[in-house]
Amino acid sequence: MRKEELITMAHGTGGRMTQQLIDKVFGTRFSNPILDRMNDAAILPVGGGRLAFSIDGHVVSPLFFPGGDIGKIAIFGTVNDLAMMGARPLWLVASFIIEEGLPMETLRKIADSMAEAVKQTGVQLVGGDTKVVEKEKGDGVYVSVAGVGIVPEGRNIDASNAQPRDVLIVSAPIGNHGITIMTLREGLKFDVEITSDAAPLNGIVEDLLKAAPHVHVMRDASRGGLATVLNELSSASGVGIEIDEDTVPVEEPVERACALLGLDPLYVANEGVFVAVVPPEEADAALQAMRVHPLSKKAVKIGEVVESHPERVVLRTALGAQRIVGPLSGDLLPRIC
Amino acid sequence: MRKEELITMAHGTGGRMTQQLIDKVFGTRFSNPILDRMNDAAILPVGGGRLAFSIDGHVVSPLFFPGGDIGKIAIFGTVNDLAMMGARPLWLVASFIIEEGLPMETLRKIADSMAEAVKQTGVQLVGGDTKVVEKEKGDGVYVSVAGVGIVPEGRNIDASNAQPRDVLIVSAPIGNHGITIMTLREGLKFDVEITSDAAPLNGIVEDLLKAAPHVHVMRDASRGGLATVLNELSSASGVGIEIDEDTVPVEEPVERACALLGLDPLYVANEGVFVAVVPPEEADAALQAMRVHPLSKKAVKIGEVVESHPERVVLRTALGAQRIVGPLSGDLLPRIC
Repeated sequence: MRKEELITMAHGTGGRMTQQLIDKVFGTRFSNPILDRMNDAAILPVGGGRLAFSIDGHVVSPLFFPGGDIGKIAIFGTVNDLAMMGARPLWLVASFIIEEGLPMETLRKIADSMAEAVKQTGVQLVGGDTKVVEKEKGDGVYVSVAGVGIVPEGRNIDASNAQPRDVLIVSAPIGNHGITIMTLREGLKFDVEITSDAAPLNGIVEDLLKAAPHVHVMRDASRGGLATVLNELSSASGVGIEIDEDTVPVEEPVERACALLGLDPLYVANEGVFVAVVPPEEADAALQAMRVHPLSKKAVKIGEVVESHPERVVLRTALGAQRIVGPLSGDLLPRIC
Repeated sequence: MRKEELITMAHGTGGRMTQQLIDKVFGTRFSNPILDRMNDAAILPVGGGRLAFSIDGHVVSPLFFPGGDIGKIAIFGTVNDLAMMGARPLWLVASFIIEEGLPMETLRKIADSMAEAVKQTGVQLVGGDTKVVEKEKGDGVYVSVAGVGIVPEGRNIDASNAQPRDVLIVSAPIGNHGITIMTLREGLKFDVEITSDAAPLNGIVEDLLKAAPHVHVMRDASRGGLATVLNELSSASGVGIEIDEDTVPVEEPVERACALLGLDPLYVANEGVFVAVVPPEEADAALQAMRVHPLSKKAVKIGEVVESHPERVVLRTALGAQRIVGPLSGDLLPRIC
């Protein structure tokens, strides 16, 4: 008898197995031209214009961590998904699944934080739903947030738009969010506290697109980390990607924590870092515009799109060697967002 | 010391305590003119037109039941919320929170059912997200679905629009969904199997609004049942509501099951039943149009909106007595949807 296939924690990490789950269970059954593009947000034709529409669930554990909490990343997560498609995020709705016995005070703190995040991003929360499940059928609270935004005319951002010679820019040092959660869960202490990079990206995106209106692709490097996102882009566009190891920004405390935990920062989740794929003639303007913004002042070029090795991401090491960087596999980082 | 306030199962039933939770924790923090209307879906101004936008989480237990499953009611639930605002539902996104160890086959069956429901309602699923939580931090799978629809010009449906003399029409017999779940959970068997009323309402709504274009309010009588929904409407519109007990349609097996379980069918959840508040001059046309449709062929007038006793719902019994019918209180019906 065939062993029964079960859902494992590895199906939730945002890497290879998540992709397989989505492809096999959902992609085949719901296939349509909008869904099949597999962008961060769906682009919908409405009254001559275009809307972006997206949803993200959040199950991060613990609920509160240095630099953020589940409410904050739930708001930023959906705002960022919309911004990554060049949309101006406008309206959000939230679904709460609450575990019986959660202190009301905890829920209030999360709602406070969400309200602040809503204000910070300039959107409105226009609807919601709450459900309660029995003790040990949940874990405090899970939050799913869906959002709608408007894509201004002239913008054309799509995961499949990357072209050879495009420049890859990463907006900020990577790994802070994931490492914050992992060190907290492992009970580790460092001399320098690491805090989540949780941040809204819609402001930066507006500044970036003003300076570099032909940006081809943007994607936030959340679950699965930078490496997984670059693999998704190279697949969607059918191009190769090459990055230089020594240009990928990783702050020193994160680097040390990664070494201690046996993690590669390329696979660690971020909540306020994105990759922009920019035509070479606009790359300098893009970098300059991003560096003005406090949330992306360390933006840096990390590599480029190439014609060779399509659908492969290659890392050039400091010593001149090259190695293929695949998407995240295994279940190293459960419930990171 | 003050006793710490905790979330209880009663906060999840859709009745009085759910309303208090929403008002106190969310209503105050996120107040804006769109949210404050507290409709089934938010109405958004986009490019000269209007969009409807809504989200609903589903945590029903068990996942499968006669007449439906969690996937089906998750699709219908959001489609119906949009339809209740007079919108034509177009696009959905879904967030899955899956418990480790769930058989992949179960997820496939749910996805099959959702795909069928998507087809049946004529919408497209355009995006989604999956998360996995550890065993005993979930219960199989929870599904939140958000949806966007377009409100055609000329329609003006709002919970606050009910006016004295308006006629109340209920689209179908009540209580079937809730009783299906409760009898299944209690392990009860009846000679006639009761099945959930889970059904999409967008088709009926189009036919209804063609015949009666000035319908004032529509609302599906889901969690909290017909009584709770009527209370919400009477509050939102600042009017009284009177209904006749012997006109409220309840099928005989549901009536018997309710008696056995000590439940009042007025408070039992439905997943394919709605109330329409129709100006008197269009009431006959509305009823006729609804009765043509297979899902509302038993549509019936159950009462009317009155000027007296504002924000109160009064039931006139067969014997000529009157009693006030409040919203659902207590925690009789947990995880019904």
